[in-house]
Amino acid sequence: MRSLYNRIAGQNLERLAALSDGVFAVAMTLLVLDLRAPAAEAIHSEHDLLAALAALSPRLVTYMMSFLTLGIFWLGQQVQLDRLARGDRDLALLHIGFMFAVTLVPFSTGLLAEFMAYRTALLAYWANILLLGIVLYLTWGHASRARLVKDDTPPDVVAAICRRIIVAQSLYAFGAALCVFSTYLSIAFIALVQINYAVALPLALRR
Amino acid sequence: MRSLYNRIAGQNLERLAALSDGVFAVAMTLLVLDLRAPAAEAIHSEHDLLAALAALSPRLVTYMMSFLTLGIFWLGQQVQLDRLARGDRDLALLHIGFMFAVTLVPFSTGLLAEFMAYRTALLAYWANILLLGIVLYLTWGHASRARLVKDDTPPDVVAAICRRIIVAQSLYAFGAALCVFSTYLSIAFIALVQINYAVALPLALRR
Amino acid sequence: MRSLYNRIAGQNLERLAALSDGVFAVAMTLLVLDLRAPAAEAIHSEHDLLAALAALSPRLVTYMMSFLTLGIFWLGQQVQLDRLARGDRDLALLHIGFMFAVTLVPFSTGLLAEFMAYRTALLAYWANILLLGIVLYLTWGHASRARLVKDDTPPDVVAAICRRIIVAQSLYAFGAALCVFSTYLSIAFIALVQINYAVALPLALRR
Amino acid sequence: MRSLYNRIAGQNLERLAALSDGVFAVAMTLLVLDLRAPAAEAIHSEHDLLAALAALSPRLVTYMMSFLTLGIFWLGQQVQLDRLARGDRDLALLHIGFMFAVTLVPFSTGLLAEFMAYRTALLAYWANILLLGIVLYLTWGHASRARLVKDDTPPDVVAAICRRIIVAQSLYAFGAALCVFSTYLSIAFIALVQINYAVALPLALRR
Repeated sequence: MRSLYNRIAGQNLERLAALSDGVFAVAMTLLVLDLRAPAAEAIHSEHDLLAALAALSPRLVTYMMSFLTLGIFWLGQQVQLDRLARGDRDLALLHIGFMFAVTLVPFSTGLLAEFMAYRTALLAYWANILLLGIVLYLTWGHASRARLVKDDTPPDVVAAICRRIIVAQSLYAFGAALCVFSTYLSIAFIALVQINYAVALPLALRR
Repeated sequence: MRSLYNRIAGQNLERLAALSDGVFAVAMTLLVLDLRAPAAEAIHSEHDLLAALAALSPRLVTYMMSFLTLGIFWLGQQVQLDRLARGDRDLALLHIGFMFAVTLVPFSTGLLAEFMAYRTALLAYWANILLLGIVLYLTWGHASRARLVKDDTPPDVVAAICRRIIVAQSLYAFGAALCVFSTYLSIAFIALVQINYAVALPLALRR
Repeated sequence: MRSLYNRIAGQNLERLAALSDGVFAVAMTLLVLDLRAPAAEAIHSEHDLLAALAALSPRLVTYMMSFLTLGIFWLGQQVQLDRLARGDRDLALLHIGFMFAVTLVPFSTGLLAEFMAYRTALLAYWANILLLGIVLYLTWGHASRARLVKDDTPPDVVAAICRRIIVAQSLYAFGAALCVFSTYLSIAFIALVQINYAVALPLALRR
Repeated sequence: MRSLYNRIAGQNLERLAALSDGVFAVAMTLLVLDLRAPAAEAIHSEHDLLAALAALSPRLVTYMMSFLTLGIFWLGQQVQLDRLARGDRDLALLHIGFMFAVTLVPFSTGLLAEFMAYRTALLAYWANILLLGIVLYLTWGHASRARLVKDDTPPDVVAAICRRIIVAQSLYAFGAALCVFSTYLSIAFIALVQINYAVALPLALRR
């Protein structure tokens, strides 16, 4: 009985994509929700307001970094889903695990924004990125093993998706390790990795 | 006049799925929103921050359990919608009732996370899961009776969907009843049921 | 130049439906977000917690009523969109106005839940429902005039959609007028109208 | 390796539209979330409540203006996406940048609503609108250059989309510059531009 139910569950890839898009959209918008207008009582001049906004700028940097992170992982998930011919129940559950890691990002980002100088906050943030990577890797592994991938996918694409996750996670891990010296160094390195994946690389390839 | 209006209402299954995905996505993300970074004033060292994060871990467990619950019910709803050939107005309204139960989950989860030792909180949480199950059962019953199910659906699938809901709800009810001894026992049992549905079973079937 | 731009804008009905579904999903989930677990400091026994939850129940009723209202208007919008062959820029902007009214519902519901005995709160709530109705009426009027409706739509369907809005809004207006006697009477009447549209009517038709 | 991964990433225009719709839906609903029911302690009569609601009305105007802004930019993005035959990774990343600007709108709107008389708040708000325009312009430029636009798109449509952005942004910039005299003048001008784009123009064309 259970196996019959499980055989018919989780086959709808469009709804999996729709739920993921919803979770990403809410997580991305909530990120910025933590940016709060300063309290009116504390502001008595243009200069006060400018100073209050300037004081928000480190937070803004953290949010931009996390927004980019979510964007890159959204693309990473999409690359996988676009290659699938069908889904199954385990795939759906692995993606639900992936979404859980996505919903943690506003929390770990808020933690890092509040406690930028603390290694604990930085490592919690990195653990979140690591979790995203691990689940995405498991998801792809399951899709390959369970023959959910489209038949016309060349083997080098299957391998490229795995390698991409490992290379990116190695860079994040190196960045996190830099917190031995300074958490700011870690943040700068991870932000550069994200910017590299998002912007610099495509520019370089165009040359 | 009304019957004409009602005949043309609620036929669009894609929009019903889209609204549901949106409600699930928001509810899932809001769950974790209750995890708040500790107040900066209370943190003076790495040790303080680590202790504050460790103090959040029971909450994290509750949220994971509820996330999994939402994921399992999302799959359960999808199994039903995937089997439907068309919708009608009553079906849409039953699913709107289902979504109402979904939006209550962040509230009942927050209540349980705050008052883990209280039977009232545990029973409120269980009542929410029960409501999800009842509405899903009524939804499927209506779909079968109103002949909305696809013609190629074997009768054992129709029965399997009903049985699945009843078996799962019996387990949840047993778990809730364990609060006579201890609410923590109840939480552990319900969490195990969810993990079993999500993880252990597929692993077992693979052997 | 502008007319060229406007001619190509707003034709995508699927994206209009998707944006609407998103706005409805967020508004529906935020409704319940105002239900807050009681503060832990005030709760010292099961009895305290039960009393605190019981004190939330009038709010729960208001939220259920608003949830149902949103569900009914979501169905109403869907009936219209399902009948359209194509969109145009004005239609998109009218629906954006409709969504604005939708996003006001959590605010006006919170207001009513907080100030149930105040006519001002009740009339603000009714004004929100009225706005939803007016925009939906204008939307359908524009769709008919601009020949966006599918060719195979019988004229009585076009008329039934208009009449439905007018009948429902007349009932809401009557309910709001009852606040001359008591706002609770108004709330009860409007809640009954919603329940009638959602539940009683289909049951009656089945006989 | 990387170029292979990048070649297969970001091709799915439907998911890009779905993520955008989600981000817009959440941002639009959160806008109004800042409208809070007055505190029950401060309200002792109908008159108090009416006065408290009247005091919210400047905020309501700001929110309506931002809602309209989001609606207009949503239409602007849709016009572009509807003209595309396919996507690529850079396009997806540019749209993710666009969504980042969208998620900032609730923040900059809240800032303006709180500090209407401050030029800093007005210029921050304008900077947000400018960012939306710049990213949308870059997105279209990339789409044209990378030959992502549908083959049947007449050249004057390509040009009209560019011109539309430039004309609108010029008007916004002029409105922002009016803050030399008064920030209220700026707000009134920008609100009129939005209303013109949304309402007046179509009316004028109908004549």
